Amino acid sequence: MRPSGRQIDQMRSVTIELDATRHAEGSCMIKCGDTHVLCTATVDERVPPFLKNSGLGWVTAEYGMLPRATHTRMRREAKNGQSGRTQEIQRLIGRSLRAGVDRVALGERQIVVDCDVIQADGGTRCASITGGWVALKLAVNKLMKAGEISSDPLTDPVAAISCGIYAGQEVLDLDYPEDSDAGVDGNFIMNGSKLVEVQMSAEGSTFTRAQMDKLLDLAEKGIGELNAIQMDAVS
Amino acid sequence: MRPSGRQIDQMRSVTIELDATRHAEGSCMIKCGDTHVLCTATVDERVPPFLKNSGLGWVTAEYGMLPRATHTRMRREAKNGQSGRTQEIQRLIGRSLRAGVDRVALGERQIVVDCDVIQADGGTRCASITGGWVALKLAVNKLMKAGEISSDPLTDPVAAISCGIYAGQEVLDLDYPEDSDAGVDGNFIMNGSKLVEVQMSAEGSTFTRAQMDKLLDLAEKGIGELNAIQMDAVS
Amino acid sequence: MRPSGRQIDQMRSVTIELDATRHAEGSCMIKCGDTHVLCTATVDERVPPFLKNSGLGWVTAEYGMLPRATHTRMRREAKNGQSGRTQEIQRLIGRSLRAGVDRVALGERQIVVDCDVIQADGGTRCASITGGWVALKLAVNKLMKAGEISSDPLTDPVAAISCGIYAGQEVLDLDYPEDSDAGVDGNFIMNGSKLVEVQMSAEGSTFTRAQMDKLLDLAEKGIGELNAIQMDAVS
Amino acid sequence: MRPSGRQIDQMRSVTIELDATRHAEGSCMIKCGDTHVLCTATVDERVPPFLKNSGLGWVTAEYGMLPRATHTRMRREAKNGQSGRTQEIQRLIGRSLRAGVDRVALGERQIVVDCDVIQADGGTRCASITGGWVALKLAVNKLMKAGEISSDPLTDPVAAISCGIYAGQEVLDLDYPEDSDAGVDGNFIMNGSKLVEVQMSAEGSTFTRAQMDKLLDLAEKGIGELNAIQMDAVS
Amino acid sequence: MRPSGRQIDQMRSVTIELDATRHAEGSCMIKCGDTHVLCTATVDERVPPFLKNSGLGWVTAEYGMLPRATHTRMRREAKNGQSGRTQEIQRLIGRSLRAGVDRVALGERQIVVDCDVIQADGGTRCASITGGWVALKLAVNKLMKAGEISSDPLTDPVAAISCGIYAGQEVLDLDYPEDSDAGVDGNFIMNGSKLVEVQMSAEGSTFTRAQMDKLLDLAEKGIGELNAIQMDAVS
Amino acid sequence: MRPSGRQIDQMRSVTIELDATRHAEGSCMIKCGDTHVLCTATVDERVPPFLKNSGLGWVTAEYGMLPRATHTRMRREAKNGQSGRTQEIQRLIGRSLRAGVDRVALGERQIVVDCDVIQADGGTRCASITGGWVALKLAVNKLMKAGEISSDPLTDPVAAISCGIYAGQEVLDLDYPEDSDAGVDGNFIMNGSKLVEVQMSAEGSTFTRAQMDKLLDLAEKGIGELNAIQMDAVS
Repeated sequence: MRPSGRQIDQMRSVTIELDATRHAEGSCMIKCGDTHVLCTATVDERVPPFLKNSGLGWVTAEYGMLPRATHTRMRREAKNGQSGRTQEIQRLIGRSLRAGVDRVALGERQIVVDCDVIQADGGTRCASITGGWVALKLAVNKLMKAGEISSDPLTDPVAAISCGIYAGQEVLDLDYPEDSDAGVDGNFIMNGSKLVEVQMSAEGSTFTRAQMDKLLDLAEKGIGELNAIQMDAVS
Repeated sequence: MRPSGRQIDQMRSVTIELDATRHAEGSCMIKCGDTHVLCTATVDERVPPFLKNSGLGWVTAEYGMLPRATHTRMRREAKNGQSGRTQEIQRLIGRSLRAGVDRVALGERQIVVDCDVIQADGGTRCASITGGWVALKLAVNKLMKAGEISSDPLTDPVAAISCGIYAGQEVLDLDYPEDSDAGVDGNFIMNGSKLVEVQMSAEGSTFTRAQMDKLLDLAEKGIGELNAIQMDAVS
Repeated sequence: MRPSGRQIDQMRSVTIELDATRHAEGSCMIKCGDTHVLCTATVDERVPPFLKNSGLGWVTAEYGMLPRATHTRMRREAKNGQSGRTQEIQRLIGRSLRAGVDRVALGERQIVVDCDVIQADGGTRCASITGGWVALKLAVNKLMKAGEISSDPLTDPVAAISCGIYAGQEVLDLDYPEDSDAGVDGNFIMNGSKLVEVQMSAEGSTFTRAQMDKLLDLAEKGIGELNAIQMDAVS
Repeated sequence: MRPSGRQIDQMRSVTIELDATRHAEGSCMIKCGDTHVLCTATVDERVPPFLKNSGLGWVTAEYGMLPRATHTRMRREAKNGQSGRTQEIQRLIGRSLRAGVDRVALGERQIVVDCDVIQADGGTRCASITGGWVALKLAVNKLMKAGEISSDPLTDPVAAISCGIYAGQEVLDLDYPEDSDAGVDGNFIMNGSKLVEVQMSAEGSTFTRAQMDKLLDLAEKGIGELNAIQMDAVS
Repeated sequence: MRPSGRQIDQMRSVTIELDATRHAEGSCMIKCGDTHVLCTATVDERVPPFLKNSGLGWVTAEYGMLPRATHTRMRREAKNGQSGRTQEIQRLIGRSLRAGVDRVALGERQIVVDCDVIQADGGTRCASITGGWVALKLAVNKLMKAGEISSDPLTDPVAAISCGIYAGQEVLDLDYPEDSDAGVDGNFIMNGSKLVEVQMSAEGSTFTRAQMDKLLDLAEKGIGELNAIQMDAVS
Repeated sequence: MRPSGRQIDQMRSVTIELDATRHAEGSCMIKCGDTHVLCTATVDERVPPFLKNSGLGWVTAEYGMLPRATHTRMRREAKNGQSGRTQEIQRLIGRSLRAGVDRVALGERQIVVDCDVIQADGGTRCASITGGWVALKLAVNKLMKAGEISSDPLTDPVAAISCGIYAGQEVLDLDYPEDSDAGVDGNFIMNGSKLVEVQMSAEGSTFTRAQMDKLLDLAEKGIGELNAIQMDAVS
């Protein structure tokens, strides 16, 4: 029934290649099927003004797409002037990653996670969060190894997956053909076994609480699998 | 327990004053406690380019705050250059209102709903959706009366309410003091008895599915009350 | 002869409602016929850089229109990117209000007066100045009550009125139908009985000094009436 | 009494050099004492959208300053992003020049007058209007010679002069040292013997109607002299 | 003598991986040592306005850097708002590629070449040109295979290499440590055996014609090697 | 053979008028045939942030065109928002002038050279460099006279000339008709007898090293003549 022939609760195959670029303090290339995102984490010893002298750390994110990551070419975007969609996505990534960080343990420094989509086939914001956490973890490991941080500010991994109602059926991990056609579309982000963000949106058809519950079941299954892949990558 | 002394499932008092300005095709001033939003609906016979000759209508929204609607003065924002937060809110308003519109019945025209916050005390996006639907309905009624539309494109009302976990307790309709302190914050939008959007976000603490269910129960209660106020206003 | 049936030297009815929003240090809603402007005054303890350590205060203004304050919807404007017309208006408001302020008595602080047009029917810049002075006065009163200011920096009220040549006749207080059709259009701002700004502009026909004198006579009459309403409101 | 030693009703010496650049349809360099402005008129056969198929012509203006036209270096300005002051000036120039144009006789075309200040010593907006009219006239003459226009759309010259109250005395044609110190500052624009724009502004001290009358007397004298210089240049 | 231990006339090892992304009509990842650039070619059937109905094709380029392609994080750039350096580079890439295109044979269509630096270690503009030509060739091959183009508009390859004077010695293919320290820096672009662009710049020390000749000898050697790698990749 | 009737190695007549504006620390109007550029040098005691406390001086440049310096009117440009061409030119001017400055001798201050094209007929960037050096020299002389600088930071003059292949023939100093038609176009900048920048670009046809050598011969001849004119002007 699914265009890809996958089972309704079957994710695309996911790989995470570490140290994808040499300059970043942490980096990985995450591939969720044909969606490829390069995630880099940059350590900045300065925090945003509102945290000056607070002793607390900060994690923020930026999201971008290469112009030809998509079927048709898109225009480049800069900070200040990004589309509403881009801003919404990068705010979500930053908020989600922060939910899994002990900001006292991180210390007064900022880590900027850049998620750049090299190739898109649906689910880019979820791949960015899942891969972004890995890049963040690698950067934090480097700080711990250097003695800059003494206790690990990251415990459980943060991961994200989309689920939706496609052709009347709840399915896990929408790819682009499903996503463009789904009646309901949701993104679920968890920190270990706890929820940190749920976003469900009617795209053409409304939904019931029963349907919502089924999507949550699928999401929990998928995120469990992603967590295993993340922990395997960073260990 | 709540700063306002309200019950945990008690909304602020809501009033909707119709025809708040004379030029708009539909308008109202919605007051949810100390949150006051002026909603106007403008009928535009031109649709966005992607709908040219499609026979389908469109509803979109813009959201703004007067500079001193808030405790401290904020800078004015224009289309192109709005903050990420503003863009996220107005995209949500537009998406939510569209979910309750029969775009074939509306015909190939656009209605722009402007939601301008005159005074803010939490829950401005929800008040904008609830009041925005009333302004939209008034504009549609005028089109129907003029014979421009023959069958009503709006059936059930669209309304929105926030719920959250404040001081460890699930509560309905957060005001500003609660909102700034809530561990979990959610916005729930319904079209009659069906869900159209659910957004839950951990702000400091993660949450479980059981907590999420309690918030949904509160939201359904609140939206039922809002629907009654909306239908009373437009009848 | 006038579309509204008013006498040539008759102003529209003017009301000033104090404390129109709860967060601002001073605020009012001024209604000049169908022109409604919300004026708020915000006290800012920081002055612009060029006044640092001068001991002098500053008053500045911003002017905005809600998108549907007018017959057809207008785009939102932000600081940096305002139209020439908007900038001209807010520079005029600020300059006029400052002319009535003893900046030594005000002390080294800034008051920002925001004038937001809720509904427009001609004469919005004049209503903004007249109402803006009331909001400013309320904010100053609060500072005096709190002991932050010892001698009143505002003595005579600042008020503004438009006059013009409509259908060959000099008339007081142009409304929108008159304004769009006037051959000559002027704005007159006074501080008590002294002039602070005169702006006359040929819109289609030139004018003589004799005509100019008649317009000034009308303006002095109107401003006298406005001053009485202002003093009544703030006392 | 005046820093320059001039009489109170004495203008600076004014020269107008025609054809100051070779590409423009009309151009001149006007020098009013040490204020030097290059004015060029460009004929554009397209009118702004609101005049399409109206049969009416349009005249508009842009104003700029070379970065080092002033005592301290200023930043360059582009259309979209000009300061409020610059926009106010160029709107004034365009409005004033249009007041002297028979837009039916001009025919459906636009003339853009660029006024670029090469060296500034006060009174740049007035010099721009006076010189701008000459550039405009030269461009119109070229169109008439080419048979594109049959009856002259420019009859009386448009000219402008500043007057103000300096050291308590009404004086004609303020230069920079006077302008920075004047208590009241006014710009007067006439089309032949009729007024087209009067702008008076209290800069530090308010003014009476008697003072205003004296300034108008001075302005009429100055503009008479400017008209003679303009007519001499273009004949 | 060189930090990398290379001979003075020795290029870094170069690899070109074809079809690096799935959506673009042509794409490759070029690696010149540690400089990695993703080049994609997008076919657009619309040409820029100035070529409408000319029968001529167009090739243009955009250049970008991922934020963490460099030692320190850089801000994202969008079209409109790119730094002078970025604009200079992408104008150079476009101009160089066009020099090798028969625009009649290409037909009235545009090909946009995007060069995005994934990792930078000096020489990114040269790698972009060399790799950009390969992406362009692949896109053209696809058009020829589809019968859209009948005769090959690309004959000889376009390639680029930098040379410079480092530590007083002329060397081929500067990497980042050399580039930051070079006294003279040049970029040489050839189309087969003919020059299309020479850019030499004193960065700290001036240069003689004799030195310039030595750099040209090195460049010709390097470009010969690059051409062989390009032709090998696309055959 | 040349449209102007000049010999192939003949420059246009060049004049340099000193002190072209009264406010700048150094200024000149350079006229190369019908290309007229006003160059001003502004001394700024603050250096850019990256030079704070370095003891080193800085020279930078900005380039602009009056809207009607060209055949058709161009839009005004501001810093931030300049076209790629403008940025490329002003970066070249700044880099070239710096190549002739002893930045230790200049001391920790900045000189900004503004080059504003009053009338264009080809070769504006070269005229800007040649005239810009004169303005810079005058400003430096003033600093030396005032005892702010003790040893002259400018020794040999910096000058620039264009050469190109027009109608198959190498020619010196392209004017606009030649420039629009040239197959190869080059700009050559020298500091006394040493090269500081060479930029050659194929515009339609590629070129050989032999052709490049001929262009260099012409450039050396032209720059020798320019140096004589510069030294004559400043002595």
